[in-house]
Amino acid sequence: MNYQQILEEIAAETADEAGRGQLATYIPELAKVPPDRFGIHLATLDGGQFAFGDAEIPFSIQSIVKVLAVAMAYGKLGERLWQRVGVEPSGTAFNSLVQLEYEKGIPRNPLINAGAIVIADVLLDLLDDPETEFIAFVRKMAADETISYNLQVAEGEKATGFRNAAMANLLKSFGNIRNDVNRVLDFYFLSCSIEMSCRQLAQSFLPFANHGQLPGTTEKVFTISQTKRLNALMQTCGFYDEAGEFTFKVGLPGKSGVGGGIAAVCPKQFAVAVWSPLLNPKGNSHRGMKALELLTTKTGFSVF
Amino acid sequence: MNYQQILEEIAAETADEAGRGQLATYIPELAKVPPDRFGIHLATLDGGQFAFGDAEIPFSIQSIVKVLAVAMAYGKLGERLWQRVGVEPSGTAFNSLVQLEYEKGIPRNPLINAGAIVIADVLLDLLDDPETEFIAFVRKMAADETISYNLQVAEGEKATGFRNAAMANLLKSFGNIRNDVNRVLDFYFLSCSIEMSCRQLAQSFLPFANHGQLPGTTEKVFTISQTKRLNALMQTCGFYDEAGEFTFKVGLPGKSGVGGGIAAVCPKQFAVAVWSPLLNPKGNSHRGMKALELLTTKTGFSVF
Amino acid sequence: MNYQQILEEIAAETADEAGRGQLATYIPELAKVPPDRFGIHLATLDGGQFAFGDAEIPFSIQSIVKVLAVAMAYGKLGERLWQRVGVEPSGTAFNSLVQLEYEKGIPRNPLINAGAIVIADVLLDLLDDPETEFIAFVRKMAADETISYNLQVAEGEKATGFRNAAMANLLKSFGNIRNDVNRVLDFYFLSCSIEMSCRQLAQSFLPFANHGQLPGTTEKVFTISQTKRLNALMQTCGFYDEAGEFTFKVGLPGKSGVGGGIAAVCPKQFAVAVWSPLLNPKGNSHRGMKALELLTTKTGFSVF
Amino acid sequence: MNYQQILEEIAAETADEAGRGQLATYIPELAKVPPDRFGIHLATLDGGQFAFGDAEIPFSIQSIVKVLAVAMAYGKLGERLWQRVGVEPSGTAFNSLVQLEYEKGIPRNPLINAGAIVIADVLLDLLDDPETEFIAFVRKMAADETISYNLQVAEGEKATGFRNAAMANLLKSFGNIRNDVNRVLDFYFLSCSIEMSCRQLAQSFLPFANHGQLPGTTEKVFTISQTKRLNALMQTCGFYDEAGEFTFKVGLPGKSGVGGGIAAVCPKQFAVAVWSPLLNPKGNSHRGMKALELLTTKTGFSVF
Repeated sequence: MNYQQILEEIAAETADEAGRGQLATYIPELAKVPPDRFGIHLATLDGGQFAFGDAEIPFSIQSIVKVLAVAMAYGKLGERLWQRVGVEPSGTAFNSLVQLEYEKGIPRNPLINAGAIVIADVLLDLLDDPETEFIAFVRKMAADETISYNLQVAEGEKATGFRNAAMANLLKSFGNIRNDVNRVLDFYFLSCSIEMSCRQLAQSFLPFANHGQLPGTTEKVFTISQTKRLNALMQTCGFYDEAGEFTFKVGLPGKSGVGGGIAAVCPKQFAVAVWSPLLNPKGNSHRGMKALELLTTKTGFSVF
Repeated sequence: MNYQQILEEIAAETADEAGRGQLATYIPELAKVPPDRFGIHLATLDGGQFAFGDAEIPFSIQSIVKVLAVAMAYGKLGERLWQRVGVEPSGTAFNSLVQLEYEKGIPRNPLINAGAIVIADVLLDLLDDPETEFIAFVRKMAADETISYNLQVAEGEKATGFRNAAMANLLKSFGNIRNDVNRVLDFYFLSCSIEMSCRQLAQSFLPFANHGQLPGTTEKVFTISQTKRLNALMQTCGFYDEAGEFTFKVGLPGKSGVGGGIAAVCPKQFAVAVWSPLLNPKGNSHRGMKALELLTTKTGFSVF
Repeated sequence: MNYQQILEEIAAETADEAGRGQLATYIPELAKVPPDRFGIHLATLDGGQFAFGDAEIPFSIQSIVKVLAVAMAYGKLGERLWQRVGVEPSGTAFNSLVQLEYEKGIPRNPLINAGAIVIADVLLDLLDDPETEFIAFVRKMAADETISYNLQVAEGEKATGFRNAAMANLLKSFGNIRNDVNRVLDFYFLSCSIEMSCRQLAQSFLPFANHGQLPGTTEKVFTISQTKRLNALMQTCGFYDEAGEFTFKVGLPGKSGVGGGIAAVCPKQFAVAVWSPLLNPKGNSHRGMKALELLTTKTGFSVF
Repeated sequence: MNYQQILEEIAAETADEAGRGQLATYIPELAKVPPDRFGIHLATLDGGQFAFGDAEIPFSIQSIVKVLAVAMAYGKLGERLWQRVGVEPSGTAFNSLVQLEYEKGIPRNPLINAGAIVIADVLLDLLDDPETEFIAFVRKMAADETISYNLQVAEGEKATGFRNAAMANLLKSFGNIRNDVNRVLDFYFLSCSIEMSCRQLAQSFLPFANHGQLPGTTEKVFTISQTKRLNALMQTCGFYDEAGEFTFKVGLPGKSGVGGGIAAVCPKQFAVAVWSPLLNPKGNSHRGMKALELLTTKTGFSVF
């Protein structure tokens, strides 16, 4: 498979989509990203690295971090984790409080905000030095020690994150947050502020394509069963209320973020990350979605 | 892979589950099925046939037919179909009217009742002799001319199907039913009354594992892209509000029915059907779910 | 109190509102009503009759009949009635199925469609010849033997009443309809088709202002307690999701209909009916609401 | 009318209800109230004062304060107030976030928590020294300078008020809170902590029975129109999702609190306050509701 050529074709064929969509503007740091950025990086299990465009520029991974956070918590806690958060698609907008109230404070899954806030609370209990240990885990997944938080982004999230604060307080009222609400929110906002390039992001998702093993090592971060289940979660829950559409058109497990990034996994083959900051009405990268749709068409790879 | 031995192990290891769950009792024909029935049949792409237990006894496939109905409609109509029904998981109970009302009469997907009623309406428009042509399609998929409707079951569904009637009328009020409401309901109830054995059911799902081609022939019923998308639909929407759980634990596209049957697909490998009439609280076969969970554990096959 | 002068002032002061609002057009008979009709009639307990404009022209009373229907059922059945329908405001649009599903088939109150359909079912059980006995009850309330059903309107309602059919089937699925669904819907649509003039309507609501007694007779149709409770129902539930607004601005128990009529009651003083066919976005007569707001301002009468 | 005898009869006839219901226990100060307390005080416009039982013991008025808060805000701001909060009954539990989300941050009415939090925000903008000026207003309404906040109760509310914090943050996310969220919550919790006896409470509601005028003075706190509208609000929204039931059975405008108090108004006649700490499943005083039902039965007074 000539991945390099495929990435270049994808870039060319999605060039017309470049100006479409809306930049996330709710915090200043996201609002000032050049809207025409486009990068893509594909890393194969056998060490192949293919890239196009702005694949080395770090961007705010935002909700993509939810996969890494739940993976860390699941790896440490095992199946007990699912007593506090479900594995079902949400079927509604990513920040809805309605479902949370009807379902008594158990979020539908760990990839929506409410679920990720519970995961943040879980990690606060599991880790001695949460901020340090979590970024260390992300760096290890990506095999790159330069990755870090962006404190200004975290600050910006906190200053406007009233809906997340509403959610955290509602979770607390149902008893599904154990730590102080503000402590949980701070850690949650901080984790969302991590910046990575497409290359780093693709690398950090490779273990999900590799049965939970860090590529080029013999270290297993998760069991085979856990890896499959994390992929299953991404497949059914990774794109808010566009998860069905993504599964339908792309057919790979993946996760998007409001910074315009998407990471996806082709089990036993590769991980891929794409970045284009303009979002479609569902909050997913417009050009990124198109790019991944082309990728599965051109490679013929999909889990189905 | 020694499938025969695996099926026998599965039967043995799930024997303890045999008495658990509830029989569907809302129509007499379902209520009188012996609750201890258990059959499983696995058909591979290369013609292998493996079975255990009551795999030759026909049972009411009920909602499993929704996959065959949407497949027929999609094959004939193409992408236009998705203007009238979505591809997103529903995130709520299989018969909820709430979502339908909020979303203005466009059902979330074709595998919940509301969506399947729209598909019935679509087929009434597409087919000259709907009842005859639909059963002919099912027989062709299963390569078995003996499959037929059970008129008594259809009659029983109609006599108690007030919630489906509510749904059909609500769809009509939103303009998403074109034919007479009673005509649509009659055809819908009739399609759900089809009886098949595990062997027939597994066979009829083989084309979904085979890129849309009828096994042993050169005839393509659907395109590769359509096949992948139908599998994707089963993956995200095939088990009502347990779709995430099934994806999480089993990791194969599939569809369950209230008669206790489940059909599932392992792309490029096999199709499998299991039958055990006692249902879990979500309305899916209790022992059937356990059996398929074991199947992917033992074979190591899952799409993830 | 010079009621005649007040009515004339109201007509003059609301003249500017005459062209505002939308005609109900979902059935032909309502769509062809001249939109500039305006009539008002006020009947006092001591026999005073005051009118202005088109107060003698019969119009389709539509949902106003719900008050008369629940009054008849309550008078016959007593407090047992409230096992099948609540007395709480609905807080949502008049035809929402959502609340009905969450609340397991017990409609919020008898003045929304779902509740009125249950009342129709109750009357079918209570009456030997429901159609004849119900119109006889309405004629007796209005002291006018000329009032009758409009079969064409009932036919038109039935031909487009899919949402009501959805509701009736949903009620049936919850076991809160005992008769055949179509029988119930036919009787419900027929009752809504009754035509009355403002004069007849005001007269028929006088017993609610008179402790349940037919004016000028010694016959009590309801007890004092029942009368107060029916007025309370009108106060909290008579205007769909504008009930609070009406209570807030007008301060009298009342009920509106999609034909543009409103009937209201000032306990111990008078009953009033107003008719103006153009509706506000909530489905209540635009000019009618303004007229009643002026009436309480000018008379100083309100229950508060 | 021999009010004193009526109050004594009510106390005797509701004695059997004394042990029924649940104490509010979510904050320590409420949990330690003796559950058998029962007091009632009725104040007439002409200066009559009638009491029975624990009518002089101050208790936590909790949500009853919402009437006084909205009255103060309405008196100062006029009709502009209704741009930020509605006047419709909520039709759901008193602390539901669902409706707030569907209705984009405009609370249904000022007597549910969400609405009262908006009122607190409004008062913070209107008043120079909110805490001082608000208690002064309450003292003036009750003609009693001894009324004060209970800081321990306010502290307890804050420590457990996660659902209210969720609501306030959600309101802020919709732009319907202007001040700092914590500042608003502090003022809201403080206002709910006010303690009054039945006598003080009845006195403070007398202006609502008196066209907005302070009894025995010529000072009008609200206009006649405002007074009627505030009564209308209490009538349709004063008892959470039991407002219809209270209107149906009691027929007077009123407001309950989780401390077991209820205040009610009979326009042009009297105001009454009753206190009994055990609550029914809807969160209203069990014996208090019975007592007021008997009061309207015995006096024959109701607005209907």
